[in-house]
Amino acid sequence: MKLNILKDDLNESIQHVSKAISSRTAIPILTGIKIDVQPNGVTLTASDTEISIQSFIPPEKDGTAAVEIITPGSVVLPAKFFTEIIKKLPSRDVTIEVKENFLTWIRSGSAEIQIVGLDPEEYPLLPQLEENEVLNVSSDLLKAMIRQTTFAVSTSETSPILTGVLWNFSQDRLKLIACDRLRMASRESHIDSNNSLNFQNIVIAGKSLNELNKLLPDQNMMVDIVVANNQVLFKMDTILFYTRMLDGTYPDTSKLIPQSFQTELTIDTRKLADAIDRAYLLSREEKTNIVKMTLKDENTVEISSSSSELGKVKEEIDAHTLSGELLSISFNSKYMLDALKVIDSDYIQICFRGAMQPIIMKPEDHSNMLHLIMPYRTTG
Amino acid sequence: MKLNILKDDLNESIQHVSKAISSRTAIPILTGIKIDVQPNGVTLTASDTEISIQSFIPPEKDGTAAVEIITPGSVVLPAKFFTEIIKKLPSRDVTIEVKENFLTWIRSGSAEIQIVGLDPEEYPLLPQLEENEVLNVSSDLLKAMIRQTTFAVSTSETSPILTGVLWNFSQDRLKLIACDRLRMASRESHIDSNNSLNFQNIVIAGKSLNELNKLLPDQNMMVDIVVANNQVLFKMDTILFYTRMLDGTYPDTSKLIPQSFQTELTIDTRKLADAIDRAYLLSREEKTNIVKMTLKDENTVEISSSSSELGKVKEEIDAHTLSGELLSISFNSKYMLDALKVIDSDYIQICFRGAMQPIIMKPEDHSNMLHLIMPYRTTG
Repeated sequence: MKLNILKDDLNESIQHVSKAISSRTAIPILTGIKIDVQPNGVTLTASDTEISIQSFIPPEKDGTAAVEIITPGSVVLPAKFFTEIIKKLPSRDVTIEVKENFLTWIRSGSAEIQIVGLDPEEYPLLPQLEENEVLNVSSDLLKAMIRQTTFAVSTSETSPILTGVLWNFSQDRLKLIACDRLRMASRESHIDSNNSLNFQNIVIAGKSLNELNKLLPDQNMMVDIVVANNQVLFKMDTILFYTRMLDGTYPDTSKLIPQSFQTELTIDTRKLADAIDRAYLLSREEKTNIVKMTLKDENTVEISSSSSELGKVKEEIDAHTLSGELLSISFNSKYMLDALKVIDSDYIQICFRGAMQPIIMKPEDHSNMLHLIMPYRTTG
Repeated sequence: MKLNILKDDLNESIQHVSKAISSRTAIPILTGIKIDVQPNGVTLTASDTEISIQSFIPPEKDGTAAVEIITPGSVVLPAKFFTEIIKKLPSRDVTIEVKENFLTWIRSGSAEIQIVGLDPEEYPLLPQLEENEVLNVSSDLLKAMIRQTTFAVSTSETSPILTGVLWNFSQDRLKLIACDRLRMASRESHIDSNNSLNFQNIVIAGKSLNELNKLLPDQNMMVDIVVANNQVLFKMDTILFYTRMLDGTYPDTSKLIPQSFQTELTIDTRKLADAIDRAYLLSREEKTNIVKMTLKDENTVEISSSSSELGKVKEEIDAHTLSGELLSISFNSKYMLDALKVIDSDYIQICFRGAMQPIIMKPEDHSNMLHLIMPYRTTG
């Protein structure tokens, strides 16, 4: 294997795949990045068995040569050292050549590096997915849907299925749900699928989705989603992102949502978030995060927290509209802030069924998103 | 105590003093920031006993009112919560009022905060320094001198005195020395003192100097240095920075520096640093940091490192001038990089007395700076 390549292109591609490198892995070859050089381009692969990422560098980019392939072949190079040394090479041109026993020579300007490579035959094969049914989603929408749900997954391994986000697609509606017993976030959207595509109970680890989100481009483009066996593949322009599905059956969360309410409030999203943020500062010091919302009259919402050691924070905000019974309810302010942060609408609707019942929050201008937060049972 | 103050000014002042707050302190009141309100302005104080910082907010700034003092007084407020809540207040105007038992009310826009304050009488007094003898130094020079030496202090507590930087001033020359047995950095400069000022064996903890450096302004101004008893005071525009001197006698480092050399090399600082940086990447993986410099002929310097597991890095750089015996010498590349980073001259002079003797490095264009690095005794 021998090729000339531009440092910046190689570097960019390494950055893409390196998100799948785990420093602690039971499979030593997975500490490496696999490089495949074929006449049609260069493919880099990294995997931590949960996720696998491939990044492709075509011979030409925007009409200028990026890669000159001299001899096809492949090798696995230790990820950490390879990543760092490529970043710091002195010239924009890099020559990589694999010699006997996978000893790999890297030359750039006056620098000459030999890296002990590994046999690419030992590198695990990526899953082969049948691409009969492909869902085509815009990357901006995908990014928003992931951001608006993934924060709510459980971080506890006692119910592994809750560390993932549930993906359902039927009747051209994609719905994502994350839930950790004390809160829930769901987001749905209409997506044209042009066929009878339909999948249920696809659960993808929140950690994997966070990595995927970093790879989704700043500029909007279409992403193909392929679901097959126990894998989901997200296909971007030059990047393939594979993730394993979590085993198990995701609980039915629809039962959590009350069907009728005693009180409905609409309020300025930003003002509420800022007031809760201040009250949170105090409650965080107490390590409880408890903040109280009191509906004082049909125009006034009071946000407060108090700590015997530190003091009190209190603030009144105008309600935009308020109907139904007045009440006082305590909740985990961190959870409330997480939800408010991902609601892009100017006003939100908050529905209450009583101080001991779940709080339901929706953007005021559409019903594609729903957040649920369990209240604290306090005596206050 | 009651005052109206602009949030941004208060916030800036809190940021200044908060560098002296330690979350772990045996003296509970030192987890707080002391606020003194006098007719001539507001003073904030924080201290961790090693360093103490005061920041002063005058009633007027640039001709506009920054503070309106209603009732003088003082209070100590818990630093962490106070710092965070001020940052997040909703309005640019803040009213702070101390009521009974030091309960402190903060009002800003719709937000109302009560903080349990502490008795300022319990706050330790700052040292009173006699300002008979003051050294007046430009902040840019001070910043450079601290940056160019402090990195070389020892991090080991086995010789506490070596965790500090030695400050000597005599005959209008200020000299700073840091040393950790395997390396040394010294920097000196001429400073007009207009009197017979003279101090020796002033040792200031590296940690304190790093904090001071963060407080030194971006724009050059004059800083007064006052040395008295066991304290050094750095007086900036609106900031006072007090630091304790370390106890003990700093070792005589002049004996470490060889008086004659076998080999003298001058070389491009940046090119050498970049080549060593690449070799360092490999040696760091081996956790040795050992890099070898080989003077191959009078034009050629080779930088290399090798690892049985990972491979090799090798690079040749042109010597600018090279005279004396050729040699091969191994050293801690991290130490060498630290020194190269603070040398601002385009070329450096490196002097060798043999593979087992200290390496001496100086900027090629002046003799105000000297770095010493002990070689590794290798068989290579």
